[in-house]
Amino acid sequence: MTGVSCPLPIGAYDHVVLGHGSGGRLSADLVERLFVPTLGLDRNAPLEDQATVTLDGGARIAITTDSFVVSPIFFPGGDIGRLAIDGTVNDLAVGGADPRWIAAAFVLEEGLPFADLQRIVASMREACREAEVRLVTGDTKVVERGKGDGIFITTTGVGTVPAGRSLSIAAARPGDRILVSGSLGDHGVAILSVREGIALETELKSDVAPVIGLVRALLAAAPGTRAMRDPTRGGLASATNELAVASNIGVRLVERALPIRDEVRAACEIWGLEPLHLASEGRVMAIVPPQEADRALAAMRAHPLGRDAAIVGECTAEHSGIVSLVSRAGGERIVAMLAGEPLPRIC
Amino acid sequence: MTGVSCPLPIGAYDHVVLGHGSGGRLSADLVERLFVPTLGLDRNAPLEDQATVTLDGGARIAITTDSFVVSPIFFPGGDIGRLAIDGTVNDLAVGGADPRWIAAAFVLEEGLPFADLQRIVASMREACREAEVRLVTGDTKVVERGKGDGIFITTTGVGTVPAGRSLSIAAARPGDRILVSGSLGDHGVAILSVREGIALETELKSDVAPVIGLVRALLAAAPGTRAMRDPTRGGLASATNELAVASNIGVRLVERALPIRDEVRAACEIWGLEPLHLASEGRVMAIVPPQEADRALAAMRAHPLGRDAAIVGECTAEHSGIVSLVSRAGGERIVAMLAGEPLPRIC
Repeated sequence: MTGVSCPLPIGAYDHVVLGHGSGGRLSADLVERLFVPTLGLDRNAPLEDQATVTLDGGARIAITTDSFVVSPIFFPGGDIGRLAIDGTVNDLAVGGADPRWIAAAFVLEEGLPFADLQRIVASMREACREAEVRLVTGDTKVVERGKGDGIFITTTGVGTVPAGRSLSIAAARPGDRILVSGSLGDHGVAILSVREGIALETELKSDVAPVIGLVRALLAAAPGTRAMRDPTRGGLASATNELAVASNIGVRLVERALPIRDEVRAACEIWGLEPLHLASEGRVMAIVPPQEADRALAAMRAHPLGRDAAIVGECTAEHSGIVSLVSRAGGERIVAMLAGEPLPRIC
Repeated sequence: MTGVSCPLPIGAYDHVVLGHGSGGRLSADLVERLFVPTLGLDRNAPLEDQATVTLDGGARIAITTDSFVVSPIFFPGGDIGRLAIDGTVNDLAVGGADPRWIAAAFVLEEGLPFADLQRIVASMREACREAEVRLVTGDTKVVERGKGDGIFITTTGVGTVPAGRSLSIAAARPGDRILVSGSLGDHGVAILSVREGIALETELKSDVAPVIGLVRALLAAAPGTRAMRDPTRGGLASATNELAVASNIGVRLVERALPIRDEVRAACEIWGLEPLHLASEGRVMAIVPPQEADRALAAMRAHPLGRDAAIVGECTAEHSGIVSLVSRAGGERIVAMLAGEPLPRIC
């Protein structure tokens, strides 16, 4: 408790807790109850992961920004540098934009070895090459020991939006199918296994990857696609809950259709986690009209990053704003957004 | 020392020190010796504070990013929120772009009072309104207590570049005049006085302000303007040194022409600081061809933010790459970039 009288108690809190960075319920509260009113934003506009703005000549560009504070900074399958590029490229891609330019701002903690910084920057270069984006400007600040944590990277991506392209998480309709491009939660469990120092039977790697190629293949095969999201912080649970609220529909997921690796299931049982809350960093959730769903699935599966793609559920007219899961046993339960923060600093 | 063998010793260091965030010599070293080679950038391209990119249709946009880690987060004349908006708006403005859109990413430390966050966000809203820019997207992450410092904000600005506009710190020529729009170092001393808990005789406020209006007036009066910079981290010394190197010219400053407040001079004497190294956050350095210098000065002085504007020096053919200062006594000495970091976390 801070002793400061807070004009905006959010839930039980008058100060920031880890859960406000979870991508779950508390993150949404912070946005809705502090940022939206204080900035005077439109409470009813859907919150997309990117903003699309129109230049005077009519061309549209998309802008997205993310700070990366993942801990540890090196993990199986990647590091904070790759995550910072792919995460931002993917936000643009799933919004329907062509990622073009990246700005990167570094907050370094005094004492960070140059060898680590060089390895991270080299990883960013490689990730930019793969995603065909150009790092065009940057900034570096340094804070005293104990006032940061090695390195934080904020990447901002600017992309161009093709004429006629319009995707929005407010656009889903009853009957639309929900696809995911591959196994869920690999990134979350990879981070957790390193952080907790627990060796899994087989090493699970983060799925971090640029999804722009997969997204292009999907849009070519299923041009009626309503929306896409990358299920990062808060996992598929947050992505589908945001969809349900923004589109005023229900979402019904089917447990046996969810692509989840045995290692991830096992880790969730050990740590008491919900796989649907775990972050992926190289997966796409796509909302596709029913008549294009099979073509969309085939296009995803034909891509190296989409071999385990699956149709995992559908949008419904009933239970608007609610996400439910049909269990293997046939029961149905509500899938809530992440409430606390069992896995802080996943990205 | 870290125990890690570093492939890139920079000066005496194999790890990050506070000086690498100073905007001075060590900052430049880090960019030139780690970021440029690791990213495979062009070593000879001048480092502008913003990147200008061209869309397929030919329209140009400018992109700039900065992390703000100022300590304390509230200071006389402003706070980290205002600084984050004005700093980014000003980078675009001095590059010749019209600032339009802002993305803001927050790294919050667990325990930050909502009352502080709300005050900062309200300040950002007001700064956006003043500068006529729109905050279009954002992100919030949270780190554990002791892994951050209250709040860090990274703002990225996107602006449009008018057709035909071309400003570059590589464009200065011998004979060009160097103007500054107002008193130097107010921001630096305002921060220092709070941080050190020392009351000055009169409270000195930070000069933080959006310079877009002043810049427009200047460019209208002096369309031949070669380049502008906001002398923030590293002060006028860094800005002129970067100019001298990028343009292959010498810079001669005249001490008696420099607008420096008595309080700033006094503070510099007490703390052993060089006024030319101190940050301003609402000032413009402009390089103007000699025939337009008087009109440029008059335009600055006619603007509320430019009442103390002055012509403080000129570009010379001799001593290429070097900045010198003609003292009140008539002697001449070299003005080096800031070497260490007497004033960490000024922005």
